[in-house]
Amino acid sequence: MDQDLYYGTYLQLEKLLDAQSLESTRAGHTVHDEMLFIVVHQAYELWFKQVIWEIDEVKRIFDQRVVDEADMGSAVSLLRRVVEIQKLLIQQVSVLETMTPLDFLDFRDYLFPASGFQSAQFRVVENKLGLRAEDRMLLGGASYTSRFSDQDRRDVEALEGEPSLFDLVERWLERTPFLDHGDFSFWEAFQLAVKNRLEADRAVVEANPKLTSEEKATQLKEFEITMDQYEALFDPAKHAEQQASGRRRLSHRAFQAALFITLYRDQPALQEPYRLLELLMDIDEGFTSWRYRHAQMALRMIGRRIGTGGSAGAKYLEKSAERSRIFGDLYNLSTFLIPRADRPPLPPGIVESMRFKYEE
Amino acid sequence: MDQDLYYGTYLQLEKLLDAQSLESTRAGHTVHDEMLFIVVHQAYELWFKQVIWEIDEVKRIFDQRVVDEADMGSAVSLLRRVVEIQKLLIQQVSVLETMTPLDFLDFRDYLFPASGFQSAQFRVVENKLGLRAEDRMLLGGASYTSRFSDQDRRDVEALEGEPSLFDLVERWLERTPFLDHGDFSFWEAFQLAVKNRLEADRAVVEANPKLTSEEKATQLKEFEITMDQYEALFDPAKHAEQQASGRRRLSHRAFQAALFITLYRDQPALQEPYRLLELLMDIDEGFTSWRYRHAQMALRMIGRRIGTGGSAGAKYLEKSAERSRIFGDLYNLSTFLIPRADRPPLPPGIVESMRFKYEE
Amino acid sequence: MDQDLYYGTYLQLEKLLDAQSLESTRAGHTVHDEMLFIVVHQAYELWFKQVIWEIDEVKRIFDQRVVDEADMGSAVSLLRRVVEIQKLLIQQVSVLETMTPLDFLDFRDYLFPASGFQSAQFRVVENKLGLRAEDRMLLGGASYTSRFSDQDRRDVEALEGEPSLFDLVERWLERTPFLDHGDFSFWEAFQLAVKNRLEADRAVVEANPKLTSEEKATQLKEFEITMDQYEALFDPAKHAEQQASGRRRLSHRAFQAALFITLYRDQPALQEPYRLLELLMDIDEGFTSWRYRHAQMALRMIGRRIGTGGSAGAKYLEKSAERSRIFGDLYNLSTFLIPRADRPPLPPGIVESMRFKYEE
Amino acid sequence: MDQDLYYGTYLQLEKLLDAQSLESTRAGHTVHDEMLFIVVHQAYELWFKQVIWEIDEVKRIFDQRVVDEADMGSAVSLLRRVVEIQKLLIQQVSVLETMTPLDFLDFRDYLFPASGFQSAQFRVVENKLGLRAEDRMLLGGASYTSRFSDQDRRDVEALEGEPSLFDLVERWLERTPFLDHGDFSFWEAFQLAVKNRLEADRAVVEANPKLTSEEKATQLKEFEITMDQYEALFDPAKHAEQQASGRRRLSHRAFQAALFITLYRDQPALQEPYRLLELLMDIDEGFTSWRYRHAQMALRMIGRRIGTGGSAGAKYLEKSAERSRIFGDLYNLSTFLIPRADRPPLPPGIVESMRFKYEE
Repeated sequence: MDQDLYYGTYLQLEKLLDAQSLESTRAGHTVHDEMLFIVVHQAYELWFKQVIWEIDEVKRIFDQRVVDEADMGSAVSLLRRVVEIQKLLIQQVSVLETMTPLDFLDFRDYLFPASGFQSAQFRVVENKLGLRAEDRMLLGGASYTSRFSDQDRRDVEALEGEPSLFDLVERWLERTPFLDHGDFSFWEAFQLAVKNRLEADRAVVEANPKLTSEEKATQLKEFEITMDQYEALFDPAKHAEQQASGRRRLSHRAFQAALFITLYRDQPALQEPYRLLELLMDIDEGFTSWRYRHAQMALRMIGRRIGTGGSAGAKYLEKSAERSRIFGDLYNLSTFLIPRADRPPLPPGIVESMRFKYEE
Repeated sequence: MDQDLYYGTYLQLEKLLDAQSLESTRAGHTVHDEMLFIVVHQAYELWFKQVIWEIDEVKRIFDQRVVDEADMGSAVSLLRRVVEIQKLLIQQVSVLETMTPLDFLDFRDYLFPASGFQSAQFRVVENKLGLRAEDRMLLGGASYTSRFSDQDRRDVEALEGEPSLFDLVERWLERTPFLDHGDFSFWEAFQLAVKNRLEADRAVVEANPKLTSEEKATQLKEFEITMDQYEALFDPAKHAEQQASGRRRLSHRAFQAALFITLYRDQPALQEPYRLLELLMDIDEGFTSWRYRHAQMALRMIGRRIGTGGSAGAKYLEKSAERSRIFGDLYNLSTFLIPRADRPPLPPGIVESMRFKYEE
Repeated sequence: MDQDLYYGTYLQLEKLLDAQSLESTRAGHTVHDEMLFIVVHQAYELWFKQVIWEIDEVKRIFDQRVVDEADMGSAVSLLRRVVEIQKLLIQQVSVLETMTPLDFLDFRDYLFPASGFQSAQFRVVENKLGLRAEDRMLLGGASYTSRFSDQDRRDVEALEGEPSLFDLVERWLERTPFLDHGDFSFWEAFQLAVKNRLEADRAVVEANPKLTSEEKATQLKEFEITMDQYEALFDPAKHAEQQASGRRRLSHRAFQAALFITLYRDQPALQEPYRLLELLMDIDEGFTSWRYRHAQMALRMIGRRIGTGGSAGAKYLEKSAERSRIFGDLYNLSTFLIPRADRPPLPPGIVESMRFKYEE
Repeated sequence: MDQDLYYGTYLQLEKLLDAQSLESTRAGHTVHDEMLFIVVHQAYELWFKQVIWEIDEVKRIFDQRVVDEADMGSAVSLLRRVVEIQKLLIQQVSVLETMTPLDFLDFRDYLFPASGFQSAQFRVVENKLGLRAEDRMLLGGASYTSRFSDQDRRDVEALEGEPSLFDLVERWLERTPFLDHGDFSFWEAFQLAVKNRLEADRAVVEANPKLTSEEKATQLKEFEITMDQYEALFDPAKHAEQQASGRRRLSHRAFQAALFITLYRDQPALQEPYRLLELLMDIDEGFTSWRYRHAQMALRMIGRRIGTGGSAGAKYLEKSAERSRIFGDLYNLSTFLIPRADRPPLPPGIVESMRFKYEE
């Protein structure tokens, strides 16, 4: 290097700090709070870039025939970083909320028809994580990319065909060796233990004198659904039905593997895999919470008005918070857990194979 | 005092730290994580007590024929404190989330049929703020107090008849003197400015070539509803209709006063009233967010299972997060705001009356 | 506008998202975590720009012969926004901390000699708030601008001559009209009440049988200092001495005004001024906490090593967290507060002048 | 169970919510904010109880001749929970800060001489983690337990003789098998790599034309200290000197093990141990930050006054934040890290032994 590296040069501050031009200023009278609006959204975009960078690296790790165990620590740490960034995204809503509806109105018209729904990077994040086109809500009958520039649309849609993090994690789960080690009797015992547990839950409802008959009926109906899902847990054909109906997304084997990891997470070889599953749920939850907080803020900011960009506004945001869960199957694992006391003992061979070599 | 005050005595630690007995221990084998479950819920109850203490004081301030302006600063500070406490309540969910579903299962059965829905203090908070019996969701056909002990039920239901913070704030808003000072032409101009603004929004939708016809239809229908509400803003009879249909809760005059405060909040006499309105929304939002985070956690913890206490579980919590907004009318004020540039000038007499005496 | 405004164009994402180039990539092998390092620092710089934008506006409000009471609400809201942004800055440390020392080492050499101490914008923030050249620690014998580019140095040093927010607030405090309204007997009573209070504190120490004689001596010496400060409170000459010795920064009259506002903050005309003083302390505390968290992180990241840029590293950061308080005098007001019960009653004329005109 | 478990009974709310009695009420006029003071401190005590519960469990895990690898996941999760609780403790300071100095003064006298320094549970936490009597600052010449009741003093001091978490972790580190597997040439290469790295750092300082000669001298002196520590890294006698002088606390072998884990943390068998070391630092940092925030708040609340209980107040708190780091040695590991590129390759036998058995 001929020249000393300078902080401002390294961070390209000349570009970065010259990228805020207020539409209200262009229109002739600067509205003070428009700067905040720009800076918050730019900060979001910077962090989206970082999130994409991290997800790409995690995908690289999982996009191998066999995931090197020496890479699991990194994968977990990178996902934990994403979770920390999400906390920041949520905190940023609190900063934006210091802008009042009246202040927003003063420059809102200048922004039309630009809209936060045009953040291509956020759609990239969703697609890379594994949100499918069919999971998305239509924006008033139109595709989620309908308001994008041609370039952005191409970039975002190109990802729809690529394997997502969901896909790669699913394949990794399917490869879990421990499912095959067990002998038949273990799986039979396991199946029975889960069933007993669910039946016990049902008995609680039936015996509860405090429930109205209406309540009881509703909850027993819920159990029928749960029992269907339970049967699907051990029956590939039933699982396929669940998938077809949209109730399950993970493959049969991947779902079983995730349940196995969750139940026997203390085994040395399952400690990092379990953390990974937890973090995937944390990330789902992080984006869901962010969307929800964002919807609350929008509701307050614009009331019943339509959003800039003519979008349906706060209501849309609230609904989409519900719909955008990618790893929902992992949440549902809890339905099939059993207390430690009821877990059938693992076959010794499996236990052994999950320990470290240095431990004689 | 005969004796020196001692930290532990002052805080009654002997009682406080002796109030954790694990049901799992009673049943013969201690489950480590039950302690966390107890302590988190006890911390919630301590903070609920504090929140009630603060709300009572704010109610005391507003429960006067005329609210002393010298008390407004206190009211605002106390509500801000409630908001800080709510952040803590939300943060506590993150601590509880360090307990995994498997850990919870290990002692969950011992808790039956106790349930978080039996927190009498939380219902007291809701009732004191102004949640009405009719706003509540039924717990499987039964009243929200159906699972309470007799004592708790009496305590909670007794509050249903008392004026809530909502009621007291409504009366205070109705007494706002500035609404009467204005001459007729100001109110006419104001009415027109709001209308023009809404019409402009409608024109934007109609002219937008990017909207599908379906989108356009939906959004124009939304406008009809908004225009109805607009008319109600200046027509007591129409407002009464809105109230009857459940679309508005605040009285006509209180709603007008809140809009006036929001629009002219810079006037010295409106600065504190505006902060107060903002904080009431913050508190609504705080409890909504807390319920939502709690629902997310429950979903993860119990999956499709029913809650301890046989409650409908995560789904119930999620729905109730939506329903429990008390000051929703304040959110809807945004619909009728107009940019500062379009605000009709206030009559000089009103402006003058809102200044301090020391300012000649 | 010929063309529709597009989200990406409005936010200048082309520039913003093209401003991350890794030195490690230039050197031939990309170190994954360098991206995080860049993005965190860019996010800091974006927020610094925003903070400067807000401080400039608050300065504009206070830079008037008389501050319009109708602007006080805005000033308070803008400072509260700065406090929210500071929470974000602190939270960002947690994100940076997901980078481990080992990861940092992998690209640390490439950054030499660039350093976070070269953030010109942060020095601008400090100067605008009112940090004086003489308050700053030397960076190894050299000025705080010694490592800046010529341009940055000029920008930062130019501000040293301009009135800071500290200066403007001081002048505003000095103009407080209420100090002059009171008659002599009020000030006498006030002076006496403060003195009695301090004497009572001293008596507590002297009578405390639990203190060792060493403890007692230390604390009584502390009281001598406090009593000196107390005398300065009512004696301009003694106050001038305090200023000369660096123990006070605010002028005599400004300090008295701040104490008056703090004690009688419930009066309508003092509610917003009191919030303002509180927020100035919050902002001091926010930057102090941020520097401290940053120092903790640096300690963990580099141990005893020197910082990039050859700076003295973690130790320097920790010390400077202590030294950079601008509104320290406001913290010290607490020393001279008296319980409400002991406050002398305000002369009725003053009380009256601090009320709103609308209140008869 | 004869009777249904009830929420309020389970949580012993009758005790818990009856444990707040205000001294100001006893003295005849209730001061509103005293309730907050009590509740915040009670919440602290509840959480301290929980932290002790968790630390005891982690100690139980480490208090074995060999720590079962199947327990490492639990240990890590429990420590992470402690970190989440610490965030809550820090957040609680923000709630307490909503009480202003004037409000505090109104009931402060009633509390004398009770003091937060009398929290026995917090001292228990410190002792269990491993803070030694000699690490503590004297409270004005007296022991940290001098203000305790007899019972509390006995409880706290009893722990001084027991093995702390520090002690148990130290022993566990000393047992690390991997240090012995390596042949001589690996350790030689390792030693050389660290040395080269440090020399390179020194060269940077010497060659830096921007440093003043004073700066250069200071930094080079720092290097002498660092080189001494480096030598101690491989020389038990020198390490013993470091320990004697208070610069190191961990034993020679434990310090080496911690460095090894930090450098080769990607190896499967080191992933959880590395997380554990990180969390021990997080916990240190959490308490340090809490003490610091607490000191900042006290400064603001009482100014130069003495604390309730006649303690030296804010200054004491600030100093003790610095002094109370328990796992400071882990922070200092960073001094001896080397970039991955410079790490000598691990002997194949060690690498192999750190993998899982199932991997061929």
